[in-house]
Amino acid sequence: MTETRIYTASLILIGNELLSGRTQDKNLTFIAKGLNEIGISMLAAYVIPDVRETIINLLNEVRTKYDYVFTTGGIGPTHDDITTECVAAAFGVGTYVDEETAELLTKRIQARGEIMNPARLRMATFPQGSELLKNEVSAAPGYKLENVFVMAGVPRIMQLMFREAKKHLRGGQIIKSRGAVTDIGEGTIAAPLAELQKRYPMIDIGSYPQMRQNVGFRVSIVLRGTNEHILNRAHEELMGFLHDLGGNPIEEDPQTTQGSAEPEDLK
Amino acid sequence: MTETRIYTASLILIGNELLSGRTQDKNLTFIAKGLNEIGISMLAAYVIPDVRETIINLLNEVRTKYDYVFTTGGIGPTHDDITTECVAAAFGVGTYVDEETAELLTKRIQARGEIMNPARLRMATFPQGSELLKNEVSAAPGYKLENVFVMAGVPRIMQLMFREAKKHLRGGQIIKSRGAVTDIGEGTIAAPLAELQKRYPMIDIGSYPQMRQNVGFRVSIVLRGTNEHILNRAHEELMGFLHDLGGNPIEEDPQTTQGSAEPEDLK
Repeated sequence: MTETRIYTASLILIGNELLSGRTQDKNLTFIAKGLNEIGISMLAAYVIPDVRETIINLLNEVRTKYDYVFTTGGIGPTHDDITTECVAAAFGVGTYVDEETAELLTKRIQARGEIMNPARLRMATFPQGSELLKNEVSAAPGYKLENVFVMAGVPRIMQLMFREAKKHLRGGQIIKSRGAVTDIGEGTIAAPLAELQKRYPMIDIGSYPQMRQNVGFRVSIVLRGTNEHILNRAHEELMGFLHDLGGNPIEEDPQTTQGSAEPEDLK
Repeated sequence: MTETRIYTASLILIGNELLSGRTQDKNLTFIAKGLNEIGISMLAAYVIPDVRETIINLLNEVRTKYDYVFTTGGIGPTHDDITTECVAAAFGVGTYVDEETAELLTKRIQARGEIMNPARLRMATFPQGSELLKNEVSAAPGYKLENVFVMAGVPRIMQLMFREAKKHLRGGQIIKSRGAVTDIGEGTIAAPLAELQKRYPMIDIGSYPQMRQNVGFRVSIVLRGTNEHILNRAHEELMGFLHDLGGNPIEEDPQTTQGSAEPEDLK
C-alpha cells in the first residue's frame, strides 16, 4: 500500500535573539530536510518573540492546521524560557515533574560539583500528557504533546531531539527533487520554463538566481515531485532546452543547502 | 523632541526553497539589525511558500498590524515569481509598467546581447501606487506600496533595496544592547538573572547557551533597552554577580550575529 496523502508540518522558532538579528537560525533547514526525507512537507515557519500570548495563540492556530508542529527554543532553566508553560496553557493542561529526568539531571549536575535548584528543575517539568524526547547530550529532554514537538534551540541538542521525534512521525509520499544550474539569465529561460511547468503540473518548478563567488550570476532550477518517472522526464526536457539555449546546464543536487547570501555583506 | 513610541515591523520571506531546506536564509538577520539601528523592532517573521492565497492573506493580516512590512523573494521574471501580483491583489489595485525601468532594463539586456521579452518586462511591472526602490546592480527595482516594502531574495540585491527603503522609514527610540559571556551554566545564573530582570523591568534580558568550537558550552547574556543609563547599570550588576559566582564573565557585543549552529551537523 502506498500512502498517497501529503503530510504537512509547520515550525515555530521561538526567541527574541532571532528577531533582533543576534542569532542566525540554522534549525529550519535541518528540520525541513529531515521532514522531506520521510514524506512530510513543511508549509510554514514562524519566528516569534518570547511573549506568552504570542506563543499560545500561534500554537493553537497551527496545531489544528497542520499534521505536525515543531518548536525550537525556550525550554532552558532561565526566566526567558517560557515555552513549556505556554504549551501547557495552549492545551489547557497542567505540568508535572518527571522523576526519572529530575534524577538524571541531579546526577549530572552533582557530577559537575553543582547543586539541583528550582531553575534546573524546570528542565524536568513538562505539560501533562507529554512523551519525552530524550537525548544523550543534555539530560534535559524535549517532548511531544499530541502533534506538537517541543525541542531545544541549540542545534546540536535539537538535532538529537528531532531524531527521537522522527520515531513518532508518519509521513506520506516522499517528494524527490532534481536540479540544474545554468549560466544564462532567468529572463531567457522564463518562457520555456513556464511551458515546462504547464506540461508538468505535478512537478513543482522553482528558479533561483544567485551570485556565486568567482563565477558570478548563475540560475539554479529545482524540480520537485513524488513521481520519480515523471520527475526524470521533466528533468530531461529541462536539460535539453537549457542546452539548446546555450546555457551550459550542469546537473545539481537540490538537497544540498545553498547559502542565499554571499560571504561578505555589502558595505 | 525624543520619539518615544515603539515602531514595529514584520518580515515575510517568500519561497518554496526556504521551506524545503534548499536555501539557507540570511536576509532576516540583516534586515533585523538594519531596523534596530533606526529604532524599529521586528516582532515577527514568516517563511511561506509561493502560493497565491497564502501570500495575499498574510499580507493583509500583517500590514494593518505592524507599522512596516518587508517581503523578500518572488519578484524575478519566472513563473514562480508571483509576489507582485499578490501585493496588487492584497491592496486591490492593478499593475502598471514603469517606462523608465523598462528602458533601463532593455538597455542592460541588449548590452548583454539579449532581447527584451514579456518575462523580463514583468520586472518593470508594479502595483499601482508603488514608489520604486532602485538599485545599481540589477536594474530591476524593489518597491514600496503604503507600508509594505517588496524586495528581492538575492541578498546582495535585497541589501541595496533595503538601503533605499530606509529613506522611507521612520523609527522611534533605538534599542541599545550590551552583553556578556560566561562559562558557568544557565542553572547557576537563573535565579540571580531572574532577580535582575525583576529589578529592571525596562530591560529585556535573554540567556543563550551555545556550544562553541574548542571551548565547549558557554552562556551569552544579552540586555536590551532604550535607556542607556539604566542599561549600563543593569550590565554592571550582571558582570558583578557573574564574577561573584566564579563565572569569568567577559563583555560581548550582542550586535554581532552568532551562528546558533555548530560547524558540523551531527551524524
